[in-house]
Amino acid sequence: MKKNVLIIGAGGVAQVVAHKCAQNNDVLGDIHIASRTLSKCETILDSVREKQSMKTEGVLQAHQVDATDSAAVARLINETGAQIVINVGSPFVNMSVLDACIETGAAYIDTAIHEEPDKICETPPWYANYEWKKRDLCAEKEVTAILGAGFDPGVVNAFARFAIDEFMDEVKSIDIVDINAGSHGKYFATNFDPEINFREFTGTVYSWQEGAWQENAMFEVGREWDLPVVGKQTAYMSGHDEVHSLAANYPHADVRFWMGFGEHYINVFTVLKSIGLLSEQPVITAEGQEVVPLKVVKACLPDPASLAPNYTGKTCIGDLVKGVKDGKEVEVFVYNVADHKDAYEEVGSQGISYTAGVPPVAAAMLIAMGEWDAKAMKNVEELDPKPFFTVLDRIGLPTRVRDESGDRAWNA
Amino acid sequence: MKKNVLIIGAGGVAQVVAHKCAQNNDVLGDIHIASRTLSKCETILDSVREKQSMKTEGVLQAHQVDATDSAAVARLINETGAQIVINVGSPFVNMSVLDACIETGAAYIDTAIHEEPDKICETPPWYANYEWKKRDLCAEKEVTAILGAGFDPGVVNAFARFAIDEFMDEVKSIDIVDINAGSHGKYFATNFDPEINFREFTGTVYSWQEGAWQENAMFEVGREWDLPVVGKQTAYMSGHDEVHSLAANYPHADVRFWMGFGEHYINVFTVLKSIGLLSEQPVITAEGQEVVPLKVVKACLPDPASLAPNYTGKTCIGDLVKGVKDGKEVEVFVYNVADHKDAYEEVGSQGISYTAGVPPVAAAMLIAMGEWDAKAMKNVEELDPKPFFTVLDRIGLPTRVRDESGDRAWNA
Repeated sequence: MKKNVLIIGAGGVAQVVAHKCAQNNDVLGDIHIASRTLSKCETILDSVREKQSMKTEGVLQAHQVDATDSAAVARLINETGAQIVINVGSPFVNMSVLDACIETGAAYIDTAIHEEPDKICETPPWYANYEWKKRDLCAEKEVTAILGAGFDPGVVNAFARFAIDEFMDEVKSIDIVDINAGSHGKYFATNFDPEINFREFTGTVYSWQEGAWQENAMFEVGREWDLPVVGKQTAYMSGHDEVHSLAANYPHADVRFWMGFGEHYINVFTVLKSIGLLSEQPVITAEGQEVVPLKVVKACLPDPASLAPNYTGKTCIGDLVKGVKDGKEVEVFVYNVADHKDAYEEVGSQGISYTAGVPPVAAAMLIAMGEWDAKAMKNVEELDPKPFFTVLDRIGLPTRVRDESGDRAWNA
Repeated sequence: MKKNVLIIGAGGVAQVVAHKCAQNNDVLGDIHIASRTLSKCETILDSVREKQSMKTEGVLQAHQVDATDSAAVARLINETGAQIVINVGSPFVNMSVLDACIETGAAYIDTAIHEEPDKICETPPWYANYEWKKRDLCAEKEVTAILGAGFDPGVVNAFARFAIDEFMDEVKSIDIVDINAGSHGKYFATNFDPEINFREFTGTVYSWQEGAWQENAMFEVGREWDLPVVGKQTAYMSGHDEVHSLAANYPHADVRFWMGFGEHYINVFTVLKSIGLLSEQPVITAEGQEVVPLKVVKACLPDPASLAPNYTGKTCIGDLVKGVKDGKEVEVFVYNVADHKDAYEEVGSQGISYTAGVPPVAAAMLIAMGEWDAKAMKNVEELDPKPFFTVLDRIGLPTRVRDESGDRAWNA
């Protein structure tokens, strides 16, 4: 039984994680949060106190740490007595935080794949470039490391596993669809860190089809989807973390990721990208200053956290899984719908941060309760999805299923 | 009789000025060129030599100078023996170069209004904020200073003066229309320094109508024009230097400037501006670096000079002047058409640089010949337009007139 949580990061997702940990501190124990900027951690803790999110009396503490410094993170783990680390910092710090967990024996949870600042869209499968290289070491040292335990990747991996286990003998395809039908009222904004957001869409789009990696350009392949609650929406095939682990775990299935985009987003993205403003490679100004254009675009765009108060509408994220059951073709859509305004009222964040921040807390609770304390490195589809859905139902992200038999709760 | 020219600046317009000065060095004498970066001056002189532009044997020399340093410019004027300075550097250096001319007695010519780096779209009339404050001093010291002697401002000011003097007793309105119907084949590029180009369109649009300054937003007022050679084109009311001097000299006329823009330009401009990327005010990146977004956009866009080899099509810039003659309403369109490819073949530059760079050389020749050596500060409409047109006809920018009586050369 592990307890005491250290949250790494102090952005919009970290705010959700902090609130949700506080709401479940009877299970999780002490709550610590650390980032490069102490004041951002303290702002989050103020919000936790203001909303009276702590379920029971307990420790709630902010720390300053440079998460790229593995030894400093390890020291903080030892000082706080945290046995579970939820890393929702920048994807650039995954490996240093993971190393600190391996060093100290703490369980590790993250929500996105590791990235190096100067590299975009490395060769697939992406996990093999960094995280999976530590798989043997985690097993040897019995360190629990759950990779990509946000919504997508994360819950959608569990959706795929559940659909396959419950409804089919053989899986043919997994299409993950992420639609944000909400409105933030700004001219343009990204729903999480613009630097990370744009990096997802500036490289090659990798999908796993017919047993091999396929390459496309962003916005090259679009399709209209008709989804519960949000209705008809156009989504485009995009590169995404979960394609890389699902393809390894279900190599006989086609695995694709589809992200919804409006025409306005595509226009702004296309202008910025075509001019070179989304580049992570530095340019030199006429005055001789070396600048990374993408970092300037980020500085000009609204802080994603600032969108929350006026965000309205809903998200729908789910997996359309097709396969064969008793010789017959079957398909099932496993999904969640979340509401931006509800998220803001509950934890002061918008729905995208909410869907990303609740699942790693569910994973932490499952580790604390022993159900997911795998003592090895796992992607989410390698773990039993049912206890995950049970906790998610309870803490704010209910799972539903739609198929021939109708639309219902996953356990109805 | 003044002679020997010092060109300040080494951009696309300076290249045209250098070639045209060389082609007319029998009139102008020694040719010197100076900018912050010596190698850029030398590249221009290499091009002058390669195209064998020098009419007669003579001095052709490059210098390094910081044009914001008035004393350094004055020293260079004295060292080179230049009696005429053509300032086609950044608009940020106008006042320091003008001061050097006043100090040394050299004649001063520029092609755009003075700007301070951190201020956009100051209060009208713009000339009164900087240049005109030196008018009395120029008169006292008998220094010739010709302001805004490019195409627009410059030739279009002379077009207005000519139309009014020749064809009407009373002027009612002056509409300056600038259409670039050329194509550079790039996704997006500006035809001259992006920093200066965008600054023209990010502030309030000032026009002089009904005897007062009127304010509009950029792209708020558009109109379709049907012009010689380039045909039907949409142009938008924009702020521009010449409106500010013409309004002072013809206060009873409405004075407006119209710039042609395609939908693609407007879309890109709108995206960049809406996000804040055209701002001259610094932002701070997440890493703490202070950066001016506009300078980063500039660094990402193609160098305007690089467009020249593949630029095709024509420009049409002219003045629609309306007034009353013998009690009857009259209107006349005075204009020039220039060709991008012709410009490149002659001087290695695209048409926009060509139209901007030829007129100040014509002005320099008129000073050298004594016809425009006013020994005072003048805007172009305050000088006799006919000798200007005569020189422009000869050196590459013929003036034409279109009215009820047909389309013809200005002196036909």
